[in-house]
Amino acid sequence: MLPNFSNLEIILGSTSPRRSQILSDAGFKFQIKSKNIEEEYPNSLFKEEIPLFLANLKAQPLIEYLQDELLITADTIVWLNNEVIGKPKDKIDAYHILTKLSGKTHEVITGVFLYKNGKSSNFFDVTEVTFRNLEEEEIKRYIDQFQPMDKAGAYGIQDWIGLTTVTKINGCYYNVMGLPMPKLYQQLSNISLT
Amino acid sequence: MLPNFSNLEIILGSTSPRRSQILSDAGFKFQIKSKNIEEEYPNSLFKEEIPLFLANLKAQPLIEYLQDELLITADTIVWLNNEVIGKPKDKIDAYHILTKLSGKTHEVITGVFLYKNGKSSNFFDVTEVTFRNLEEEEIKRYIDQFQPMDKAGAYGIQDWIGLTTVTKINGCYYNVMGLPMPKLYQQLSNISLT
Repeated sequence: MLPNFSNLEIILGSTSPRRSQILSDAGFKFQIKSKNIEEEYPNSLFKEEIPLFLANLKAQPLIEYLQDELLITADTIVWLNNEVIGKPKDKIDAYHILTKLSGKTHEVITGVFLYKNGKSSNFFDVTEVTFRNLEEEEIKRYIDQFQPMDKAGAYGIQDWIGLTTVTKINGCYYNVMGLPMPKLYQQLSNISLT
Repeated sequence: MLPNFSNLEIILGSTSPRRSQILSDAGFKFQIKSKNIEEEYPNSLFKEEIPLFLANLKAQPLIEYLQDELLITADTIVWLNNEVIGKPKDKIDAYHILTKLSGKTHEVITGVFLYKNGKSSNFFDVTEVTFRNLEEEEIKRYIDQFQPMDKAGAYGIQDWIGLTTVTKINGCYYNVMGLPMPKLYQQLSNISLT
């Protein structure tokens, strides 16, 4: 049986235009609500624990405003050499990040947190992304002409840099954009059927 | 040194809106020219030989109109169980194709043909695409509500079905959309530097 999503009132707790676009392209209607938080996490957390923790953290200030809507929050990190790479602090940081990613395969991990009527669940997805060697001039041009500052790893896979220098991904493409939609769709199907 | 593409006059020999979008998002300016041809190929061809042959075939009627522009043509096939899966003939065929792809990993192969001043070259790219099990109703709804008829394998990875049921790809995402842009970018860089 196909899930009936029209029963499901969804609140997306994210201002990322890419997450909105994915959820909308997947056919869902939703409202956007978001509160700025400090994206801090305990040093003891490792790899997928980090975006799972931050997705949960982003949900907390929104929960009190919920009635019986489903709240979805998410956080995306880049993981390379056992280190987390978040959003760049400034253009110089963006330059250093992209220099690190050049010619290598890194992992993009998105943690998703779901909350409805006092019950919550979460999941994550991992995608490997391979950049060819980036030239210094390419990195500088990208940082100057595009908007890498609000993006984990200082790049958008749907941007010029993704189109011309990401030679391979292994996993879900939409996960790299910030929302692992096929996995989320399965979760939403289960919720709408219960 | 960064390639200087402003010297390169490009003609895209394809009416696919997805190929135009990719080339445009990658920062290229180009004109579109296309002539309808019968997309037929010898039975002796196998796998990547097929889209390479068809990309070449699509270029032939356009070559006589060229001055010193670069012509780019491409063809995309879906490959499953040693068989080519092309565009669906009708809605029933689209249904059978998607039923075949359901729950399996197939390969998407795009052949690209480049021609400039009497010289030509070509290349191809392969991406593995994995669908979760599709329900009969999902396939029917997709065929009714979207436009699978002009697409190899009867689906668009950027459509609802790609967003919600393609759990994994291995390779280049843009190759699945019809143009392996990172590889093409490298080729264009070489051409613009010579």
